[in-house]
Amino acid sequence: MPIYEPPVRDLQFVLHDLLKLSQSDLPGHSDLDPEFTEAILDAAGKLSSEVLAPLNRVGDEQGCVLENGVVRTPEGFDKAFEAMKEGGWTALDCDPEYGGQGMPYVLGTAVGELFVSANMAFNMYQGLTHGAYSAIHAHGTDEQKQTYLPKMVTCDWTGTMNLTEPHCGTDLGMLRTKAEPQDDGSYLITGQKIFISAGDHDLAENVIHLVLAKAPGGGEGTKGISLFIVPKFLVNEDGSLGQANGVSVGSLEEKMGIHGNATCVMNYDGAKGWLLGDLHKGMRAMFTMMNEARLGVGLQGYACAVPAYQNALAYAKDRLQGRAVTGAKNPAGPADPLIVHPDIRRSLMDQKSFLEGARALALWGAHLIDRTHMANDADAEGMISLMTPVIKGFMTDKGLETTILAQQVFGGHGYVEEWGMSQFVRDARITMIYEGANGVQALDLVGRKLAQDGGKHVMAFFEMVKSFCKDHSEGPLADDFIAPLKAASKDLQTAAMFFMERGMKNPDDALAGSYDFMHLFGHVTFGLIWARMAVTAQAALDAGTADEAFYRTKLATGRYYMKRQLPMTATHLARIQSGADTVMALEAEAF
Amino acid sequence: MPIYEPPVRDLQFVLHDLLKLSQSDLPGHSDLDPEFTEAILDAAGKLSSEVLAPLNRVGDEQGCVLENGVVRTPEGFDKAFEAMKEGGWTALDCDPEYGGQGMPYVLGTAVGELFVSANMAFNMYQGLTHGAYSAIHAHGTDEQKQTYLPKMVTCDWTGTMNLTEPHCGTDLGMLRTKAEPQDDGSYLITGQKIFISAGDHDLAENVIHLVLAKAPGGGEGTKGISLFIVPKFLVNEDGSLGQANGVSVGSLEEKMGIHGNATCVMNYDGAKGWLLGDLHKGMRAMFTMMNEARLGVGLQGYACAVPAYQNALAYAKDRLQGRAVTGAKNPAGPADPLIVHPDIRRSLMDQKSFLEGARALALWGAHLIDRTHMANDADAEGMISLMTPVIKGFMTDKGLETTILAQQVFGGHGYVEEWGMSQFVRDARITMIYEGANGVQALDLVGRKLAQDGGKHVMAFFEMVKSFCKDHSEGPLADDFIAPLKAASKDLQTAAMFFMERGMKNPDDALAGSYDFMHLFGHVTFGLIWARMAVTAQAALDAGTADEAFYRTKLATGRYYMKRQLPMTATHLARIQSGADTVMALEAEAF
Repeated sequence: MPIYEPPVRDLQFVLHDLLKLSQSDLPGHSDLDPEFTEAILDAAGKLSSEVLAPLNRVGDEQGCVLENGVVRTPEGFDKAFEAMKEGGWTALDCDPEYGGQGMPYVLGTAVGELFVSANMAFNMYQGLTHGAYSAIHAHGTDEQKQTYLPKMVTCDWTGTMNLTEPHCGTDLGMLRTKAEPQDDGSYLITGQKIFISAGDHDLAENVIHLVLAKAPGGGEGTKGISLFIVPKFLVNEDGSLGQANGVSVGSLEEKMGIHGNATCVMNYDGAKGWLLGDLHKGMRAMFTMMNEARLGVGLQGYACAVPAYQNALAYAKDRLQGRAVTGAKNPAGPADPLIVHPDIRRSLMDQKSFLEGARALALWGAHLIDRTHMANDADAEGMISLMTPVIKGFMTDKGLETTILAQQVFGGHGYVEEWGMSQFVRDARITMIYEGANGVQALDLVGRKLAQDGGKHVMAFFEMVKSFCKDHSEGPLADDFIAPLKAASKDLQTAAMFFMERGMKNPDDALAGSYDFMHLFGHVTFGLIWARMAVTAQAALDAGTADEAFYRTKLATGRYYMKRQLPMTATHLARIQSGADTVMALEAEAF
Repeated sequence: MPIYEPPVRDLQFVLHDLLKLSQSDLPGHSDLDPEFTEAILDAAGKLSSEVLAPLNRVGDEQGCVLENGVVRTPEGFDKAFEAMKEGGWTALDCDPEYGGQGMPYVLGTAVGELFVSANMAFNMYQGLTHGAYSAIHAHGTDEQKQTYLPKMVTCDWTGTMNLTEPHCGTDLGMLRTKAEPQDDGSYLITGQKIFISAGDHDLAENVIHLVLAKAPGGGEGTKGISLFIVPKFLVNEDGSLGQANGVSVGSLEEKMGIHGNATCVMNYDGAKGWLLGDLHKGMRAMFTMMNEARLGVGLQGYACAVPAYQNALAYAKDRLQGRAVTGAKNPAGPADPLIVHPDIRRSLMDQKSFLEGARALALWGAHLIDRTHMANDADAEGMISLMTPVIKGFMTDKGLETTILAQQVFGGHGYVEEWGMSQFVRDARITMIYEGANGVQALDLVGRKLAQDGGKHVMAFFEMVKSFCKDHSEGPLADDFIAPLKAASKDLQTAAMFFMERGMKNPDDALAGSYDFMHLFGHVTFGLIWARMAVTAQAALDAGTADEAFYRTKLATGRYYMKRQLPMTATHLARIQSGADTVMALEAEAF
C-alpha cells in the first residue's frame, strides 16, 4: 500500500516562517502560534494517514455504485466520514454563528492539503459542501442560512454545485434547466445536470444542491441565469426532513479516476427550489462557489501529487539498480539505490521543488482570502482574483506532471495498479478539467484578469516582485535567486506588453498565447515564492537555528527551481511573441 | 465509439515525397511505387478501422483473464487475429525463405502505425512475435530457423521477450534465472520473469519465449547472461507440437492500460530451452530484439496518439461552445464550434505538428534499418543506433502529452471512459516505461551513443543538418525553417560540447542533463524533418501539384512546429548548462 506522511514540518514553515501567521493583524490570528497550529496539523495528519489514506485504493477499486436509485460509497467511507465529522474538521473555518470554529481559511487550507493528499475522492464530499456553504453564507437570506448552514457545517447535510448540462459546460449561457415560479415563492426546477460530483451518496442525511437554471423574464445567455437551493429531501419548518424532492440520480459516470467520488447525472423533474441571491444574477452567486472551488482544485493539483512524490522517493531509496557513475555508493549490496542516479535525482528534485513551491503559493492565496474577508482588503482581493487562474491552471498542470514523474521512477511497477502510482496519475488528471478546464483559466487570466480594474492588480504583482528584488539585490541570495527572478519577471512583463499592444488590434494574438502566459505567470510566481522562502531560510540560518538541515535543504531545493524550472519562461515568451499567425493559419477545414 | 481514419495520404507523402522510396537503390524498392503502397495501406487501413479499432474499447473494458492456467483474451480478439493472419500482414516484411513477403521494414512500419493506432494492445501480440522472429533470424542456427520461423512468420506461434525479474529490470546483471546444461545440448531453465507482454493467450497454438538466463561458467553481471528459446509446447522433430514445457503463467498484472494485452508473471520450473546465439553473449542477441522493440515503442508512442488527435479534432469541430473573440463564426447556431478558439487551435496544432513529424521520423528510422540490412550501410546503422533512444524516449514522452492534450479538448467528457479518450492516455503511458524507461534511453544517448565510434555518428548528424541548411539557405523557406533549425542545432551542439568538456571531469554533469539532451535532440531532429518536409512540399507546389491544399497545410503545420515547439531547445540547453550542482546538491538523507 502506498505510504503517506503528513508534511507538518513544511506546512509549519509556510504558516510561520513565511506567512508569519500569528503576527498578522487579522482578527484572532494572534492565537495561531506554532504550537497551536502544530497540534491541529498533527491531529489532522493522524486522521489523514491512519484513516483516510488506507481507504484511497479501496475507493479506487470499488468505486461508487448506484443501487435502487441511491448511491453507495466504497467500504469504510461512512465510518471515515463520521470520524471527520466527530473531529469537527468540517467546521474548522466556518462561521461560529452556524456552529463553525471560526479558524482562518489559511488553516483550513493547510488541513485540506492533508485530507486531499490522503484521499482526494473522499475529501470531495466535504469540499463541495464547503463551497455550497460559502455560497449560501454569502448570498442566502437569514432564513436560508438558519435552515441549511448549521447542518452543512457539520456535514450532516452535504452540498453540490450543478452547472454543467449535456450540451454545455463552459458556455453556461446555453443552459436549458428551467425554474418556474410558484405562488409560495418557491420554484419548480426541471432539467438535467451532468458531472455532478458527490451528487448523491450514503454519507449524509440530505444533499443540498445548488442549481443554475433559467427563470422567466431573464435576458439571453448568462444574464438570464439564477441560482437555486434544491434539497434532496425537503426541510420541514422545525428543521426535520420531509418528503423526497423531485430530484434523482440518472446514472453514475465511469471515470478515469476519483472513483471514490460519485459523479452523477442529476435529473430535476419539477423539483422544489428556492432562489439563492438575486433573480437573474445567479452567475455572481455561483462564482462565490466557483472561485473557492478553483482554489480548492489548485490545492488538489499539488496535494494529490504529494503522496506520489513520497512513494517515488521511498522507492528510489529502496530499489537497488545499477551503480553510480561516480563510483559505487552501496558497495556491500548488489547494486546502488536508484537515488544515486542523476536522472532520478532530477526527477525527484522537479517533484520536490514544485510541491514545496505549490504549498507556499496555495497558503499565500488562502491568506489573501482571509485578508479579503476579515479585513476588507481590496488589494488582497484583487491579487487573489488575479492569481486564481494561475493557481488553478498552472498548479494542476504541474501536479499531473509530478504524478507522472513519480510513477516513472517505479518503472514497470508504476504501471501496475497494485503499487498505487497509477491512481495518483488518474486522480490528478481531473484537476486540469473540472471547475473550468485549464484553457478557460488561461482565457480568464489573459482576457479578464490582466485588464481588471485598469490593470491595477497585475501592476501590483510586478511592483511586489520589483520591490522584493530591490530589497534583496545584495547579499548571498542575489545570484541564485534574485537575478533569475528578475529575468523571469522581465519575460512576464514583456509578454504582458505584447498582449496590450497586439491584443487590441487582433485579440487572437493574445489568446493564442494565453496558455503559455498562464505557465509563464506560474513560473514567475513560483520564482517569487521560492526567493521569499530562500530569504526566510537564510534568515533562520543567520540567526542560528537548531534546525539547520531543514533550512539548508530548503535553500538547495529553491536553487534547483531557479536553475532548472525558471528557464521555461524564455520559451513561453518566445511562443507568445510568435502571436496567432501560425496558430490560426489553417482554416478549420484544412485540419 | 471513438473514430479512426487511417492517414494513408500522409503516409504516402512520407514514403514517396519525402523518402522517395521507389527511387531507392535498395533491392526490390523500385517496385514500391505509390500505387502499390497505396493499395497496401488502404487494405491495412480497412482492417484497422473496420476490425481492430472497434475492438479497442472492448479490450480495455474486458481485459485478459487467467482461467485454469490459460489466458483468455477479450471477445473478438481471436477472429481479428485470424483476419490479420489470413491477410498475410504478419509476414509482410519477413524473410521469403521462411514464408515472409520480403517487403522492406519501412513498409512494415507504415502498416504498423495503422494497426497500433487502431488497437495497440491487440497489435502487441504480433509485434512481439516480430521481435522474437528477428532475434532468431539473426542469431539462430539453421535448424532453429527452420523449426520456429515459418510458424512465427504466420503467427501460428507467437513470441515473447523475457528479461525482467522481480528484483531487476534495467540492471539485468542481477538476474537470477538459471540455465542448467543437459547432455542432449538443451538447458533446463528455472526462475521467475515478470511484465511479460503477450506471455500467454488463446490466439496461437504455441508461444516461443526468448528468455535471458545465467548458465554456469559465465562472468559476473551481464557477461554471464545467455539467451534461450523456451517454447510453451515442445516441438517434435516433424514440427508438430509435443508435450507442455515447464513454463506457466503465475498471474496477470492489473495495469493502468493496454488491458487487451496479457502482462504475465512467467514461472520457469526446469523448462527445456535451447541456446540462441553464443553462450554468455545473450545480451548481444537480446539487443537485436530490444533495438527493434525500442523503435516499435517509439512508433507506438505517436501511433496511439493519432486516433486521440482525430477524435479531439472531430469534437472541436462538432461541439458548440462560446463565440470566437473576433466575431461569431457560426452565427446561425447557438454558439461557435470549439475549433474557433485560439487556445483549442494551439492544442490541435501541437498535436498535429507532433504527429506528422513523428510519422516522418519513424519512417525515416525504418528506412535507415532497411539501408543497414539490405545494403550493409554502416553509416545508416550508426545513424539509427544514435537515433533509437531519441525515437523511443522523445516520441513516447510527446505521445503521452499529445493524448493528454486531446483528452483535454473534450473537457469533462474526456475524463469519462465512455468517450475513449482516457484509454488513449492510459495506453500511451506504458510507452514511456517499457523496453527501457525513458531515463534509461537518455542515459544510453548521452552515456553511450554520443561517443560511439569516436563520436562519428553525432558528427554525421550535425553534418547532415549543416549541409541541408546550406543547400536551402536562400529561398522562401529560409526564414521560417532554416534559420530556426540552425539556431536549434547550435543549441544541441553547445550542449554536446558541454558534455564533452564537463563530462570527463564529472560524469554527473552530463547525466544530470541527459533527459533534457534527449528532448533537445528530439526537437532538433523534428526541426530537421519538418524543414525537409517543407522543402518537399514547396517543391510540389512549385511544380504545380493538383493537391495544393495538402501541401499548403503541410507547410503551415511545419511553420507552427518551428515557431512554437523549437524554442524549447533554449530551455533544455539552459538546464543542461546548469550542470549537476543543483541536481545533486542534496544528500539522499536530506530528501
